[in-house]
Amino acid sequence: MFQFTVEHKSTENQGRCGRLVTPHSRIETPVFMPVGTQATVKTMTPESLVAIGFPIILSNTYHLYLRPGHEIVAEAGGLHSFMNWPGSILTDSGGFQVFSLSALRKVEEDGVVFRSHIDGSRHFFTPERVMEIEMALGADIAMVLDECLPYPSPYEAAKAAQERTTRWARRCRERHCKTNQALFGIVQGVTYPDLREKSAKELVELDFPGYAVGGLSVGEPKPLMYEMLEITVPMLPEDKPRYLMGVGSPDTLWEGVARGIDMFDCVFPTRIARNGTAMTSEGRVIVRDAKYARDFSPLDPNCSCPTCQQYTRAYLRHLFKAGEVLGLILLTYHNLYFLHTLMSQIRRALREGSFEQERREFFARYYKTTEK
Amino acid sequence: MFQFTVEHKSTENQGRCGRLVTPHSRIETPVFMPVGTQATVKTMTPESLVAIGFPIILSNTYHLYLRPGHEIVAEAGGLHSFMNWPGSILTDSGGFQVFSLSALRKVEEDGVVFRSHIDGSRHFFTPERVMEIEMALGADIAMVLDECLPYPSPYEAAKAAQERTTRWARRCRERHCKTNQALFGIVQGVTYPDLREKSAKELVELDFPGYAVGGLSVGEPKPLMYEMLEITVPMLPEDKPRYLMGVGSPDTLWEGVARGIDMFDCVFPTRIARNGTAMTSEGRVIVRDAKYARDFSPLDPNCSCPTCQQYTRAYLRHLFKAGEVLGLILLTYHNLYFLHTLMSQIRRALREGSFEQERREFFARYYKTTEK
Repeated sequence: MFQFTVEHKSTENQGRCGRLVTPHSRIETPVFMPVGTQATVKTMTPESLVAIGFPIILSNTYHLYLRPGHEIVAEAGGLHSFMNWPGSILTDSGGFQVFSLSALRKVEEDGVVFRSHIDGSRHFFTPERVMEIEMALGADIAMVLDECLPYPSPYEAAKAAQERTTRWARRCRERHCKTNQALFGIVQGVTYPDLREKSAKELVELDFPGYAVGGLSVGEPKPLMYEMLEITVPMLPEDKPRYLMGVGSPDTLWEGVARGIDMFDCVFPTRIARNGTAMTSEGRVIVRDAKYARDFSPLDPNCSCPTCQQYTRAYLRHLFKAGEVLGLILLTYHNLYFLHTLMSQIRRALREGSFEQERREFFARYYKTTEK
Repeated sequence: MFQFTVEHKSTENQGRCGRLVTPHSRIETPVFMPVGTQATVKTMTPESLVAIGFPIILSNTYHLYLRPGHEIVAEAGGLHSFMNWPGSILTDSGGFQVFSLSALRKVEEDGVVFRSHIDGSRHFFTPERVMEIEMALGADIAMVLDECLPYPSPYEAAKAAQERTTRWARRCRERHCKTNQALFGIVQGVTYPDLREKSAKELVELDFPGYAVGGLSVGEPKPLMYEMLEITVPMLPEDKPRYLMGVGSPDTLWEGVARGIDMFDCVFPTRIARNGTAMTSEGRVIVRDAKYARDFSPLDPNCSCPTCQQYTRAYLRHLFKAGEVLGLILLTYHNLYFLHTLMSQIRRALREGSFEQERREFFARYYKTTEK
């Protein structure tokens, strides 16, 4: 039901191509997973995600637990059935969301107390409780409850959170008992190399079918994130998938893959789309810009997506200026298509040994630089 | 380029089936036209409208003139090209919108001065100017500029507006010179039978290729609207299409068709969808209702649309509670599909002589009454 195979290893860097088989799809890695926070990838129909070719999406345990409630999702036959998504799903553990609530939560050894962002009601997440919720949601991949600290954090706090994350991971491992769902561990340790190493080592001893690197892309400088990957990834088993949580800008995808990451997720492409920003082969395009009022060319002349094949920058600008939902739909589709196509390019480049050259060419076109 | 044929006349009432051919589609009448105010039918892609089967949509001259501006639409190759809509388009004249601005407009014999609802800027619409704008937009069917009064209005005001509407219709007729665009006249006269008769007679003398009945469904009781139709429609030529403006609830579609109307438009199905209300074979469904939280049945068990085939009431409720755009998309699709299917049923019922029986059965199921 859950199988990961490394099919090709780059000779240029730590990157690799693999295949991840879950109960709902066969996933070519490295893969980018769109985020469907509330059981829908914002503004997209499942049919559109299938048409683009996404084999897996992410959904958020914290949000679904609060609304509509995991019992309702379970009664609907699980999350796939509830939201009509035929592919795979990964649910996070809610840890990141809960720890983002700052004033609204309190951490104890047993678990974390927090208040709902919807109605202020009080809730308690323990590792065991989160496993029950994630098993009820029924995703193909579940994540352990972790303690995710902000950047920067003092060493002692980082150490305590890392050690608690290991203890919670063990409790999650013990409680989890859904055979058609894989449970991934999450490496923490903020930006302290020794804590990252210790976290990876302790989690690997628990023998998870996959490992995430968490607590990165939370405000630290990118070189520091890459350094943490260079320390952490070599500590993880070669034959298990490695997932970098919350990362999805084009540069970090290239850099993450080069450091051995297999899976990514991020709200970035869908969120900037709703703000009117498109990722194109020539860099970002802000569609509201007055200079596009009479620009009857496609958003991206090198893109084959329906938005670029059928609509002009002038029309997209009009939709955003007029506040029309179709603008959100068309730009979200394009941005997701762009990242999906980028991941295909990255996998091909890994296989063909042209990764470093293509990365430089991409950065030159997209960022007008060879380094980012 | 523009041709209308009555193909079947009901023996039960004034209803008829016809075929309207425009440069962009062949339209079976009676027809309901979805409204694409700002060059988009809210939350729908053109592909979805094509999939449902709509041959014609409406767009609003007032809105497009203000944003993005008719010159930009013309530069894009016209409205069809600008919005990527392969079917036919009808543009209204902006009369209804401008006269709805009350405090923001001033009517003179030459035209009407109004202020933009977007930025308060001052504009002047004359019949000639509106023709230039509508020709630039390039719809298949354009409407004359009319003076549309509210209900109720005093007789003298109604008479003055009706007579001005005739004079403006003549000026529109004289200015309009686009061969692949049909220009329709608009009957006014508020709820005064003699004014409605006079308006129809004067417009018919101007020999338009089609006639609209305007200024109804603006707050008057429905029996009064039906009475006005019974007075007006028989005054219009049999071989020209008749269009009842701004009407689109199920009961008024049945009643309008029975009185000889061929074309309808209304924001009703799309607007109530965005508010979370669905039209179903068993009446309206308010999807936010708590009783649907665990209702895993389709929105309408008798509907074949993708929303009803793939999603449950519980999921639709969740999407609306969570403020997700997919809820708007799925409900809008369903409501438009519902009305499109209803119009097919109405055309078949006209042909088969079962109109009155089917109308009673529809009212019994939808409104739990045989009369509305």
